Amino acid sequence: MASKSFYALVAGVGAGTGRATALRFAQKYPVVLLARRPESYEQVVADIKKEGGHAVGITADVADPSTLKAAFESISKELPGSQLAAAVYNVNGGFAKKPFLDLSIEDLDSSIDGTVRAFFHFAQATLPLLLDSVPNSPHPPTLIITGATASIKGSAEFGSFAAGKWALRALGQSLAREFGPKGVHVAHAIIDGVIDIPRTKQWAVNGGVEDGKIKPEAIADAYWYLHTQHRSAFTQEIDLRPFVEKF
Amino acid sequence: MASKSFYALVAGVGAGTGRATALRFAQKYPVVLLARRPESYEQVVADIKKEGGHAVGITADVADPSTLKAAFESISKELPGSQLAAAVYNVNGGFAKKPFLDLSIEDLDSSIDGTVRAFFHFAQATLPLLLDSVPNSPHPPTLIITGATASIKGSAEFGSFAAGKWALRALGQSLAREFGPKGVHVAHAIIDGVIDIPRTKQWAVNGGVEDGKIKPEAIADAYWYLHTQHRSAFTQEIDLRPFVEKF
Amino acid sequence: MASKSFYALVAGVGAGTGRATALRFAQKYPVVLLARRPESYEQVVADIKKEGGHAVGITADVADPSTLKAAFESISKELPGSQLAAAVYNVNGGFAKKPFLDLSIEDLDSSIDGTVRAFFHFAQATLPLLLDSVPNSPHPPTLIITGATASIKGSAEFGSFAAGKWALRALGQSLAREFGPKGVHVAHAIIDGVIDIPRTKQWAVNGGVEDGKIKPEAIADAYWYLHTQHRSAFTQEIDLRPFVEKF
Amino acid sequence: MASKSFYALVAGVGAGTGRATALRFAQKYPVVLLARRPESYEQVVADIKKEGGHAVGITADVADPSTLKAAFESISKELPGSQLAAAVYNVNGGFAKKPFLDLSIEDLDSSIDGTVRAFFHFAQATLPLLLDSVPNSPHPPTLIITGATASIKGSAEFGSFAAGKWALRALGQSLAREFGPKGVHVAHAIIDGVIDIPRTKQWAVNGGVEDGKIKPEAIADAYWYLHTQHRSAFTQEIDLRPFVEKF
Repeated sequence: MASKSFYALVAGVGAGTGRATALRFAQKYPVVLLARRPESYEQVVADIKKEGGHAVGITADVADPSTLKAAFESISKELPGSQLAAAVYNVNGGFAKKPFLDLSIEDLDSSIDGTVRAFFHFAQATLPLLLDSVPNSPHPPTLIITGATASIKGSAEFGSFAAGKWALRALGQSLAREFGPKGVHVAHAIIDGVIDIPRTKQWAVNGGVEDGKIKPEAIADAYWYLHTQHRSAFTQEIDLRPFVEKF
Repeated sequence: MASKSFYALVAGVGAGTGRATALRFAQKYPVVLLARRPESYEQVVADIKKEGGHAVGITADVADPSTLKAAFESISKELPGSQLAAAVYNVNGGFAKKPFLDLSIEDLDSSIDGTVRAFFHFAQATLPLLLDSVPNSPHPPTLIITGATASIKGSAEFGSFAAGKWALRALGQSLAREFGPKGVHVAHAIIDGVIDIPRTKQWAVNGGVEDGKIKPEAIADAYWYLHTQHRSAFTQEIDLRPFVEKF
Repeated sequence: MASKSFYALVAGVGAGTGRATALRFAQKYPVVLLARRPESYEQVVADIKKEGGHAVGITADVADPSTLKAAFESISKELPGSQLAAAVYNVNGGFAKKPFLDLSIEDLDSSIDGTVRAFFHFAQATLPLLLDSVPNSPHPPTLIITGATASIKGSAEFGSFAAGKWALRALGQSLAREFGPKGVHVAHAIIDGVIDIPRTKQWAVNGGVEDGKIKPEAIADAYWYLHTQHRSAFTQEIDLRPFVEKF
Repeated sequence: MASKSFYALVAGVGAGTGRATALRFAQKYPVVLLARRPESYEQVVADIKKEGGHAVGITADVADPSTLKAAFESISKELPGSQLAAAVYNVNGGFAKKPFLDLSIEDLDSSIDGTVRAFFHFAQATLPLLLDSVPNSPHPPTLIITGATASIKGSAEFGSFAAGKWALRALGQSLAREFGPKGVHVAHAIIDGVIDIPRTKQWAVNGGVEDGKIKPEAIADAYWYLHTQHRSAFTQEIDLRPFVEKF
C-alpha cells in the first residue's frame, strides 16, 4: 500500500503572507486555500500549479462553522485519504484605529469575530485532524497562527484590534500547552512590521529603505521552518521584523 | 457654593473584591454598586450604611448597554451634581476549564462577553465622566480593572477564559495610553491567587496555610492606593498574590 | 517588657528617591541612611529630625562588604535591640549611554558592580535580619528594589546599564520566590520616567508639562504602600510613570 | 579575483549545542571553534573533517581579552582573507543552585563573568568583523546568543545564574537594536529544557519520554535558520523546548 499522503491548509489568502505560505508549503504538500471570495485564491492556485504544485481553492468563511464544515467535506473529496500536516491561520479581524470613544461595539466585535472566534472554529476543525496525523506525518503536525505587533502591545487607539489579537495569542498559547504533549506543534508568529505587498507599495515605511517592509516570502520561510522543527525543540513564539524596524 | 461632590462606582459586587472595594471607597465617597441581581449588593449597601457611609445599589447588566444607560440615569437622580472619581470594573465572564475540544463557542462567547465586551460598554460610559472630573477630583480620576493569573498566562484547558482576560488587559493597556495623558488613570490588577471568600472556604489552597488565600480587603487597599496615586507616578499594572503562592 | 522596636534602612540617598523614602518611612520608624559620602545624607538626617523623626546617617559603600559590615555594627550601637522592618535598595551603578563599540569593560563592570553586585551584598546582610523580624514586625518585613525603564528594556546604546538593571531584577525576582514563603516581602519598582530633582530641573521632559517628571514623594508613597501590604496580597512588581509618559 | 570567502565562529564547544552548531555551519562555511581546553574541540574538529568540512580549533578563554585577541590573530593566519559570517556565543558562566544565603559573591561573579562579561568581549571582537561582512556576506552577518529558561525567569535558588543570563539577554537585545539597522542580525535563543548529551543521558526528564530532552542538532537547525533569515524579517528571540516540556 502506498504511504499516506499529507496536505497543508492555509486560511486567509490574499496578496501577502497567505499567498507566500501557500507557495512555500506547495513545494512539499498539496495545499488547500480558504478564502471568503474566489478572487482571493484563484491567482495563487494558478501560480502553484504553474510551478508544478497541487492546490485547491475553497470559498469559505472561517468565522462561519457551517461553511467551514462544508470546506472540510470538499477537502475529503478533493484529496481523498490525505491527512493534514500543517494548518496556517492567517485571518484578520476588523481593524479600526480610532479614539476609544469613537469606537462602536461593532468595531470590537469585528476584531474579536475575525481573530479569536474564527480561530476557535478553525482550531476545533483542524486539531482533531492534526492529532490523527501525529503517528505518520513527515514533520510534527503544526498549527501556525499569524500575530502582529498588536498581539503584545495595546497601543493608544488600537484597543479593539489589540483585544482580538491578544485573545488569539492567549488561546494559541493555551493550545500549545495542551496539544504539544500530544505531538501537535502550535506556534504563534509576531509579525512586527508592515508587509511588502501591492497595497503597501507606496507606504513610506522605515524611511523607504530597501527591505524596510517584511517580504511575505520571508514569513513563509519562517512558517516552513516552524513546521519542520523536531519535536524535541518546538518554538512557541517567534518575532519577525525588518532589520531597520524600531522596537 | 459648596465644592463638587464625587462618587465611586463598583461594577460586579459579590462576596469578595467588589464588596471589599465598595466598603473601602465608601470611607471617602458615596459608592454606587452595580450587579445583575439585587441580592448581590443589598447586604453590601446595608454594611456600608451601618458604617456611616452612603451607598446606592443598582440592578444592571454591564454587558447590556440599555440597562447600563438606565443605571447612569438612576445615578444622576440619586446623586445629583455628583461626579465620578473612580470606577472599578470587577466583572467576570464565563469560566470554563475544559479540554479545548470539549469547549463550545458559547463557552468562548461567555468569557468574551463578560470580560472585554462588558468592559467596553462600561469604559465607554465611564470615561467621559472621568474626563469631566479631571479638573476637580480630589485624586486623579481612576478606572481600575480586575485581572487574574489568566490575564498573563494561557494555561492548558484555560483557553476560553484566558482569551477574555487577555483581551480585557489589552484594551485596558490601550486606554491607559490614550487617557493617561488626559489625566485619567487606567490601572490593571493581576489577582494571582484564590480569593478568601465563603465560597472558597473549604478549598485547600497553598497547603491550607493561613493567609494562603488573598483577603479581599487587601485587594481593596491596593485599589484605593492606585486611586490616590499622584499623577506624576501612575501605576499601569500591579500584581497581588499570597506570600506562599507559586509563580 | 516594652515591645520590640523596628527601624528602616535606605541604601543610596541623594536628592530624590532615597531622600523622600527616608522621610516617608521616618513617619513610622527610625531610619538609617547609607551613602558613600556624608554630604549625601546629612541634610536628609537634619530634615527628618526637624520633623520630629529619628535618623542615623552612616557612611558606607554598599558594594564593599567590609564597610557594609561596619555599618551594621554601627546600627547595633545606635539602635540597640531594634529590628529591621524594611530595607530599600536605591543604589545605581555606573551609567554610560554610548555606542557599544565605544564602551569599555569598565563601563560594564561599573554598572554590574553598583547594581547587582552591591545588591547581592546588601541582600545577604539584610535578609537574615528581615527573617528575624517576621514574627513581630508591624508589617511584613520588606526588601524594596529600585528599578528603571532599563530593567525591562535593552535599548540601543544602553547595553551596559540594562545589563546591570536586568541582573538586579532577576536576582530580586529569585529572592521574592525564595523568601516570600518565609514571610519576607521582596518587591521591585520600575521607575519609568525622569525623577523631579534639582539636577533634572532644566530638563525638557514630556514637553515640560507639569508633573511630567516623577515626584520622589510619589515613589516614597509607593514604597510605603508596598511595605504595608498584607501578606495575603504581596506585589512583586510595580511600575510608576508620569501620566504623560510614552510607554 | 575570486569572491571573498566567509567563516563561522563558535565560542563554547562541548558535547552539545556548540558541537552540533559547528557541524551544521560546517556544511556551508569553514568553522572556527573556541574552547578553553583542546579536548573540548579536538573531536569536533575531527568529526567536521571526516564529513569533508573545514574546521580550526583554537584554545582561548573568551572571558580573557588577551587570549581572545590572540585567537583572532590565529584566525587571520589560518583563514587569510576570510570574513566572519556568523558568530555563535554558547558560553556558560558558573552555575550554582543554592539557597541565596549560601551563595558566595564568587558564585555571582562566576555567573556574571562567564555570561555577560565574556560576551561583552566576544561581541566587541566580533561585531566590527560582522559589520565588515555586511556588503558581501551570503546571509546577513549574524551574532547568535544561547540563553536558557533562567534568561526569562528568576526562580528561587537560581538567583546568581539568572542574574548573569538576564544581563546577557539585556545586552543582546540592546545590540540587536543598535546593530540591526546596520545590517547585523543579533538573535537570542531561549533553550527551555534539558539538552540531550552524554552527561544528561541518565537524567529522568519529562518522565523519560522519547525526545523529552532537546536534541543539539535541533538547536543547530534553529541557529542555521536564524542565520539565513532575510533582513526584512529578522527574529530577535526564539524559544525552543521539548514538546512535552511544562512552561
